[in-house]
Amino acid sequence: MRIGIFGYGNLGRGVETAIEKNEDATLVGIFTRRDPATIKTRFGAPVYHASRVKDFCDQIDVMILCGGSATDLITQTPELASLFNVVDSFDTHARIPEHFANVDKAAEAAGKVAVISCGWDPGMFSLLRVYSGAILPDGKDYTFWGKGVSQGHSDAIRRIEGVVDARQYTVPVEAALEAVRSGKNPELSTREKHTRECFVVAEEGADLARIEKEIKEMPNYFADYDTTVTFVTLDELRRDHAALPHGGFVIRSGETSDGNKQMIEYRLKLDSNPEFTGSVLVAVARAATRLAAKGEKGCKTIFDLPPAILSPESPESLRAHCL
Amino acid sequence: MRIGIFGYGNLGRGVETAIEKNEDATLVGIFTRRDPATIKTRFGAPVYHASRVKDFCDQIDVMILCGGSATDLITQTPELASLFNVVDSFDTHARIPEHFANVDKAAEAAGKVAVISCGWDPGMFSLLRVYSGAILPDGKDYTFWGKGVSQGHSDAIRRIEGVVDARQYTVPVEAALEAVRSGKNPELSTREKHTRECFVVAEEGADLARIEKEIKEMPNYFADYDTTVTFVTLDELRRDHAALPHGGFVIRSGETSDGNKQMIEYRLKLDSNPEFTGSVLVAVARAATRLAAKGEKGCKTIFDLPPAILSPESPESLRAHCL
Repeated sequence: MRIGIFGYGNLGRGVETAIEKNEDATLVGIFTRRDPATIKTRFGAPVYHASRVKDFCDQIDVMILCGGSATDLITQTPELASLFNVVDSFDTHARIPEHFANVDKAAEAAGKVAVISCGWDPGMFSLLRVYSGAILPDGKDYTFWGKGVSQGHSDAIRRIEGVVDARQYTVPVEAALEAVRSGKNPELSTREKHTRECFVVAEEGADLARIEKEIKEMPNYFADYDTTVTFVTLDELRRDHAALPHGGFVIRSGETSDGNKQMIEYRLKLDSNPEFTGSVLVAVARAATRLAAKGEKGCKTIFDLPPAILSPESPESLRAHCL
Repeated sequence: MRIGIFGYGNLGRGVETAIEKNEDATLVGIFTRRDPATIKTRFGAPVYHASRVKDFCDQIDVMILCGGSATDLITQTPELASLFNVVDSFDTHARIPEHFANVDKAAEAAGKVAVISCGWDPGMFSLLRVYSGAILPDGKDYTFWGKGVSQGHSDAIRRIEGVVDARQYTVPVEAALEAVRSGKNPELSTREKHTRECFVVAEEGADLARIEKEIKEMPNYFADYDTTVTFVTLDELRRDHAALPHGGFVIRSGETSDGNKQMIEYRLKLDSNPEFTGSVLVAVARAATRLAAKGEKGCKTIFDLPPAILSPESPESLRAHCL
């Protein structure tokens, strides 16, 4: 399959890296709104200005969109779905039905296949919630995130006056995880499930006490959590907190009859969040290409994709070796 | 969906129990080769002799086969696929391609949908191997089973002279699990992955040392494992080892680029193996019914089923609440 990457930040680089690991995938080009001459790619793929994307309709089987959800994907995915089969990892949960409808309309009209919201959450975690819910109707879902870097929370800290840079880790509370695993189906508050660890570089002479207070009291982001703030130097931040690890747990705990508890747990432990998300996107791009080749069109999610079509192996080989 | 159960042992009772938890499922009847008058069902469903199954073609949307793989399903699934949409949990891994071909031929000819080998292994564990392999092509799969009762190994012990009854637990070795989780991708021998714990009731006056030796040296079943044998009374066996717990782990550990390790772990912890397997079968029966209603036919596996069709929820609801 011939792939294009639209948008070249952390996720774009993650997709580029994932393509290197998939023998049936070729990267045709990277499209950016910046000046292509300023972009240094990881493996030397050609870079084009986003305005040229229309010229590539015959050369690309599937376009993987790597912009941000809030301002990029909400408009880019419908636009590009009128030109290409597309895959995105749109992750603004509340706006998924609206995004689905917009993308579906564009893809249907153009006869293209679009798959939205397929990273790991939304994506693989969502998938596990659907399978586990179908198997254990009498049960309860739990999702824990981390330990990992939340870009949104790191950005929120950076917007505070006197902050040079910051990195925020979301950390699942081990005691809460254990309570869930015990099958007790506990009711857990936001505070009981996760803590937030912040590493902050402040401007010289900044009021550290005020910065710490502003972080800890920030509504939605930190106020409902036990939050720790550690001030570090810029060198320390770059040395110790440059990576983008993440992960988490989706657990469904239920009963099939009185006293017979059943537990399903799915865990991701990721050294690189963008490279893993990119790897999911490439597998889904394979599925999108195959659906398009069968004449399907319109918007899909990972819930609509038969698992076999994500795999490079043949159905016969999967039955013989994986079943 | 109107369901029939064919075969009424532990698994048949597990399916019967799972149907109680699914509001859209109705149990039409249980079919057995024994005298129906001798069968006491868990929730009072009608029981019919297997020879009468043909009379129910118009009353049953999907038949769930609950016989053993070796002697029952290998012939029953193709036979019943010519009359009904069918679902089975055929688990003789080596014969899956042959079974698939036989069932496919019968189901295609009759215009029915058949889904084979869908419990948890084969079934959910297989599914996780396919998804994880598609996402992390540069990686290694590990499957651990237990702690749980292996019926096959318990039966093997029962065939030894002087043994009245036995229960065998397969136990994953914690150190091996931890080595896998560390991302080291170790090569693990059979002995390093699992131990086997046997609880054995011997005839009065039997030569316990001989029985223990015969167990520990039994090829394929025990010789390659660290096996412990504990002799117990029949009362103790019934009191402490009556349940059928099981579970296990499917782990894929891989790299997306140099040094960036990614780990996917799926774990089941089951108080009742047959009730969980039954629950998977009922969810898959829903999918089979839906595919049949769309005019599809032939043999499928869980790899071919879009996840959404296993769920009782609508696609809109899944996108709004699970994605």
